[in-house]
Amino acid sequence: MIDVGLLDPATGDAAELVGDAAYAAAMIEVEVALLGALADVGAAPAVEIDPAALAGTVDVAAVARECRGGGNPVIPLLGALRPLLPGDVRDVLHLGATSQDVLDSATMLVAARVRERVAADLAEVRAGLAALADAHRGTAVAGRTLGQQAAPTVFGLRIAVLLDGIDRAGAALAALELPAQLGGSVGSVAVLADVLGQERAAQVRRRFAERLGLTERAGVWHVERGPVASLAAALAILLGALGRLGLEVAQGARSELGELDLALDAGEGGSSAMPQKRNPVAAVLLVAAGRRAPGLAATVLGAQLALDDRPAGDWHAEWQPLRELLRLAVESAALARGLVPALAVAADRMAANLDATDGAIHAERAQWALVPAVGRARAAALVRDALATGEAFVPALLRLVEGDPEAAPAVERLRAVTASGGPVGLSDALIDASIGGTR
Amino acid sequence: MIDVGLLDPATGDAAELVGDAAYAAAMIEVEVALLGALADVGAAPAVEIDPAALAGTVDVAAVARECRGGGNPVIPLLGALRPLLPGDVRDVLHLGATSQDVLDSATMLVAARVRERVAADLAEVRAGLAALADAHRGTAVAGRTLGQQAAPTVFGLRIAVLLDGIDRAGAALAALELPAQLGGSVGSVAVLADVLGQERAAQVRRRFAERLGLTERAGVWHVERGPVASLAAALAILLGALGRLGLEVAQGARSELGELDLALDAGEGGSSAMPQKRNPVAAVLLVAAGRRAPGLAATVLGAQLALDDRPAGDWHAEWQPLRELLRLAVESAALARGLVPALAVAADRMAANLDATDGAIHAERAQWALVPAVGRARAAALVRDALATGEAFVPALLRLVEGDPEAAPAVERLRAVTASGGPVGLSDALIDASIGGTR
Amino acid sequence: MIDVGLLDPATGDAAELVGDAAYAAAMIEVEVALLGALADVGAAPAVEIDPAALAGTVDVAAVARECRGGGNPVIPLLGALRPLLPGDVRDVLHLGATSQDVLDSATMLVAARVRERVAADLAEVRAGLAALADAHRGTAVAGRTLGQQAAPTVFGLRIAVLLDGIDRAGAALAALELPAQLGGSVGSVAVLADVLGQERAAQVRRRFAERLGLTERAGVWHVERGPVASLAAALAILLGALGRLGLEVAQGARSELGELDLALDAGEGGSSAMPQKRNPVAAVLLVAAGRRAPGLAATVLGAQLALDDRPAGDWHAEWQPLRELLRLAVESAALARGLVPALAVAADRMAANLDATDGAIHAERAQWALVPAVGRARAAALVRDALATGEAFVPALLRLVEGDPEAAPAVERLRAVTASGGPVGLSDALIDASIGGTR
Amino acid sequence: MIDVGLLDPATGDAAELVGDAAYAAAMIEVEVALLGALADVGAAPAVEIDPAALAGTVDVAAVARECRGGGNPVIPLLGALRPLLPGDVRDVLHLGATSQDVLDSATMLVAARVRERVAADLAEVRAGLAALADAHRGTAVAGRTLGQQAAPTVFGLRIAVLLDGIDRAGAALAALELPAQLGGSVGSVAVLADVLGQERAAQVRRRFAERLGLTERAGVWHVERGPVASLAAALAILLGALGRLGLEVAQGARSELGELDLALDAGEGGSSAMPQKRNPVAAVLLVAAGRRAPGLAATVLGAQLALDDRPAGDWHAEWQPLRELLRLAVESAALARGLVPALAVAADRMAANLDATDGAIHAERAQWALVPAVGRARAAALVRDALATGEAFVPALLRLVEGDPEAAPAVERLRAVTASGGPVGLSDALIDASIGGTR
Repeated sequence: MIDVGLLDPATGDAAELVGDAAYAAAMIEVEVALLGALADVGAAPAVEIDPAALAGTVDVAAVARECRGGGNPVIPLLGALRPLLPGDVRDVLHLGATSQDVLDSATMLVAARVRERVAADLAEVRAGLAALADAHRGTAVAGRTLGQQAAPTVFGLRIAVLLDGIDRAGAALAALELPAQLGGSVGSVAVLADVLGQERAAQVRRRFAERLGLTERAGVWHVERGPVASLAAALAILLGALGRLGLEVAQGARSELGELDLALDAGEGGSSAMPQKRNPVAAVLLVAAGRRAPGLAATVLGAQLALDDRPAGDWHAEWQPLRELLRLAVESAALARGLVPALAVAADRMAANLDATDGAIHAERAQWALVPAVGRARAAALVRDALATGEAFVPALLRLVEGDPEAAPAVERLRAVTASGGPVGLSDALIDASIGGTR
Repeated sequence: MIDVGLLDPATGDAAELVGDAAYAAAMIEVEVALLGALADVGAAPAVEIDPAALAGTVDVAAVARECRGGGNPVIPLLGALRPLLPGDVRDVLHLGATSQDVLDSATMLVAARVRERVAADLAEVRAGLAALADAHRGTAVAGRTLGQQAAPTVFGLRIAVLLDGIDRAGAALAALELPAQLGGSVGSVAVLADVLGQERAAQVRRRFAERLGLTERAGVWHVERGPVASLAAALAILLGALGRLGLEVAQGARSELGELDLALDAGEGGSSAMPQKRNPVAAVLLVAAGRRAPGLAATVLGAQLALDDRPAGDWHAEWQPLRELLRLAVESAALARGLVPALAVAADRMAANLDATDGAIHAERAQWALVPAVGRARAAALVRDALATGEAFVPALLRLVEGDPEAAPAVERLRAVTASGGPVGLSDALIDASIGGTR
Repeated sequence: MIDVGLLDPATGDAAELVGDAAYAAAMIEVEVALLGALADVGAAPAVEIDPAALAGTVDVAAVARECRGGGNPVIPLLGALRPLLPGDVRDVLHLGATSQDVLDSATMLVAARVRERVAADLAEVRAGLAALADAHRGTAVAGRTLGQQAAPTVFGLRIAVLLDGIDRAGAALAALELPAQLGGSVGSVAVLADVLGQERAAQVRRRFAERLGLTERAGVWHVERGPVASLAAALAILLGALGRLGLEVAQGARSELGELDLALDAGEGGSSAMPQKRNPVAAVLLVAAGRRAPGLAATVLGAQLALDDRPAGDWHAEWQPLRELLRLAVESAALARGLVPALAVAADRMAANLDATDGAIHAERAQWALVPAVGRARAAALVRDALATGEAFVPALLRLVEGDPEAAPAVERLRAVTASGGPVGLSDALIDASIGGTR
Repeated sequence: MIDVGLLDPATGDAAELVGDAAYAAAMIEVEVALLGALADVGAAPAVEIDPAALAGTVDVAAVARECRGGGNPVIPLLGALRPLLPGDVRDVLHLGATSQDVLDSATMLVAARVRERVAADLAEVRAGLAALADAHRGTAVAGRTLGQQAAPTVFGLRIAVLLDGIDRAGAALAALELPAQLGGSVGSVAVLADVLGQERAAQVRRRFAERLGLTERAGVWHVERGPVASLAAALAILLGALGRLGLEVAQGARSELGELDLALDAGEGGSSAMPQKRNPVAAVLLVAAGRRAPGLAATVLGAQLALDDRPAGDWHAEWQPLRELLRLAVESAALARGLVPALAVAADRMAANLDATDGAIHAERAQWALVPAVGRARAAALVRDALATGEAFVPALLRLVEGDPEAAPAVERLRAVTASGGPVGLSDALIDASIGGTR
């Protein structure tokens, strides 16, 4: 037993979807699907085999112990599986397949289930964020760039941008092709063709993919690791988008900012030392997952440089990082699903924080409001002078402008662009676009 | 001057497409496109400005020196640009834009040009590999897995799998959305809307994207770095697929294997020490690029965790790794374009190497050929016994089988599956699929 | 021309130390040192050659253009160098060396100079941070964990921990062995031994290292990339420590927190859009460098898996990421040297922010102050009750404690541990240790 | 249950050393060491507590399930632990500590044990490689660079370079400081100092470290992640050095090269499809571990950018990748310990492969042998002419040289440098240095 989740405080359903037992069960499904596909072309007995029942019987820990010699878990799994099958099926078990066919297809099966679960969670996240964006179309908040207050914006727009990122990342994951793998020892499908002829061999490949609910690729991909690399990249992009949600919440919830709060369940967010602490744990764990994803994805991307007809070491290097990415995706989607409805928006704190620069946050729009009247250079000079007074910016600027006959006509405009609250610029349209869904 | 290509022996056109001058020129195009878009809605003088002429005038090195204070190159570039513009245009230069709008859009422009160049090179690579795959449908070669000879295959199939990977990676890159960016200081498009009203502001965004030939995204993506992360991932996947081509060629060209050879141009592949050396430099550099891509992509993926409405540091962290990925893509596509036609296939060496295991390479197919006659267990025993003789495998097995009344009927089949040359399994169909293009 | 610093707003001296010209000059120094070492044993004419003068004559861009064929810059550099040398020296130029000897040794020479520059900058950073830590031994500030106010601390301690990290990282870099490389084509030193005999060959290796001021390793490290991997790791650790300085400053300088401020020079920190902005650019760029370092280091670490007696591709993959790490180290050390003296500490804002939780920040120490009197369970209950009042925590707790006869004796202690200002816990000793230097 | 080793065919002892149970046990040891240190200064009852007995009682899976709320496993572990302790100890359990103190110190404890196990394995690896290097001082083998035969060398030298890399990486790991962590909630040691006074608080820190056998750092390192980053880097460098051993063995064992062979135990190296396969599994898994290490290390290096007094997310991001690096180190050291004695060197195949270039492999040394007689240019011309004959290189060159009166005196020298077998260049001295140990 290496990992039951002690160092992964976000775990839970992940074990069920991507744990060793899930992988073993998926490998069994793959072998059973191959038997079924063979039966479909008359090359195996047409007996009904329940992969779940078989999976329940196999001792995963024992298979793991035995997998040291062969370098992969399929060999001992076959050893454990064979005695559990009807006698006339045993001889065709694994016919035409190689270990990598089984593990690659099983991995895609695991990925397909993860994707389904993640999609369901993301649908809730999307709904929650869309509602938030809609509700806060007019909630004024300081726009910040490079950590500094920059110009006023609305909180709904900030949420819309978050939503957009998660939405697109989810859509890209959903659009990925998850192919079955069945090429035989060196990817030529030679044994199946030897035993069944080319036509029936091709049919077995088709039926195999159909039975597993995976895409049938025209080619084999034992060393063409695009499907795995693309999956890892899509997961890392999603984890980045969700990580950004966590980062924003963790920052917004900082004690001194107080713009966001997390309604924590009893027992959540406590500290071993500080009785008053209410840590935004879900946000923190989203950040942690987002920070881990690139290193994991890099390893999977690097494993593309696989030699020969099936790779030595590079393939093996994919297994754990890809599983870990799938695990993090399950966990982060679940964390986000819990976090969004628990978000409390402190519009009063946002409004208060908008005053932090004593009005200087309005300088950009104020300056452009003056340009039509006095040109860019003098507009800039007026703003600079107002900032230099050290007084509250807007009244200081108004005073200067009112005292300048050429600039004075811009006063109404100035008042308009420095007013707070309500939509800003194209914020409503941008929010609509995000809520409407970008794809 | 940091980098003129001394540590990048593959450089060349890359400088033209992704060098600092190309970035500066692209930023100028972006500012000019914004002026054009403003003119399109009547908010700027309708003067024709030639961005290339401007780019020729700006001293990129001087702009680079001046960019230290602001943390990005747009501020000094504007300073250099403004005096070069007609007086009535100066005041609307950069109207409604922020530095990130300019650099993000310029980056996408650079990426679009890289993509075009890469696509052209990949089309040649595809044609060359397709011809090779077609020509070697019947060229027998040892299939290898985990570095060991495994089962016979055909060289055309190995090439088809390489082609498939490059093809899919190229198609994914071509399908990527490369959006324009125009959101203003905090992404709300406030200044444009202040000055022009919402409708015309939206029109400026559309015209801006159209003029640049980039996608108009409904949203802004200052901190939604999906477009950049997806681009980095797609480039890394392509570089992995091309790196694998290099890896296969470098391995096939090893002196002792000799299955592949590179026709080198005069001066290529020489050594500073060994007069006889003819190094497969293009292959080696493809591998090097493939090894570098994941670390670069990881940084860009990590930069998704960007705080606020425009990020502090995370955005800056993207610039060089993304440029380096674009550079490597240009270089690797060009290297591959040169490498493929230079590939000489030594079918005789492939045939000779097929004998390395004294026939044991036929064991898998031979065993399955026996199963119908004697079942799996006895087939395995016969093969094991033949391997144990230490003699040439096929005759040894034939002798054992001929001496076994039950097994003897499989002799014809045995001879068929251990014959060499010609298509293997479904190799022809798999090659057809790759040549036909997978998307 | 790829890179003159346009996408690297922190550049400057880096070009001088790690630019292509610096690498070319270092390679020339290496060839000249080899000639000198040969002369030392009587195997070359004892003429004085000035490497800097040679470097001034060589056209680096032309060498870069010519390096495409050979896969490394040494071959064209030799071609450019030979005609510049006295006739009797030309025949012994590069005697016994291979390209990798030259580039590896030159890289270490570049690294040695970077290290020297970095050490000088870090000495100033250390002095500045030590002075800050000392000056703020009693400056109360909210200690924060998981982004939440946790318990009071002093600002000097926070600085001391930053100093400690930078100090240790600098010391580790300074302690690294930077070895010369001279092994010949396959690392056996065969040619030197052929020409000079074993003893003089060994002497040449020693003299070569001495003349370069690099360590003489007993072995060769063409494929034993420990020296390069260790260098990359040490640089990444230093960039992480400096990045954390940037992160702390960027956070402390956030408009709403305002605990830190950067005195910016004229022209620094401006924005292309917002006239009032004063961006903490140096801090932001330190963060960016820290975010980029791990991906670069990962590539160099991965290049350890180098095959044969000199590697194909893996070696080439090291060059740019290692150079980029060296560049970032130069830039970040310089940025930090500038940032530290510009730091303004707003003790009043720190004090004000300490009130953000209405005293709840004192809960941990308050609770432990009660334990001796009433035990852990009742102490926790009292604190919980005080927190639940929703009133200012300290008076609420005092009221409860005073009303509880068993708890009342702890009142004095309670007052002491909830007082603000002055050293906290062992803060003075911890600060002393950091200031004193940890190694 | 996530991971019992199914996707990690190298597992075994790793579970015992770095599995969740080992982490839980180490955390318990840390809490018990703190109780002991408190007792040492009279601040806790002096009762003997057996951490192993406690660890045997705690349900690790249950603790893992409960750790979701707090974001770390220490809180539920304390809950499980407290009822198991004597009544008078319960109130001082965890006194002055924060969760991170416990998990950081436990991680270092786990690392210390991993390091001990790894060192023992590496001692065997070293002995085995040293014996191999010594035994093959005169075994001629083709030196290869960029995948091509380059110049003859001896196999013992190749092994010596491998040994050197593993040796240095092991020494660097052994020299690392593994510190205890005890700083309290915000790193100021405030609670301990409140309760015990400064002097006794400092004493508790010292005794705590001593009891755990870890280094006492003068400072706290909650956000100064140098110790963790250095550990990750050292592990990655070791895994790279061991990965290179795997890469060399996997390459040398390729069917067509056949220079190395692995004596496999029964059941090792088999295939699910090919009865004749004997896969070099240990070598393959060493490569896989070496490929995974950089991505894991990158994440830990990146986690240095930790904000505040204890980090949010960045700390959490370290846990799994660091554990995985420790696991891979245990596994790879054990794999290497098994692999080295199983290595069979096929000197005859090495000799046969030396003929692959028909003597051209001798060109470099032959050319330098001619230089004293005829100068560099004519030496090069003679070698070029000999290579161009297309005949066996050495006799062709001898014929040319013998026919050239000026060159003829070099004939003896030529014969000497093109003879095969025996030490090459400084190979004996280089081998001696490696065997002697580099540090």
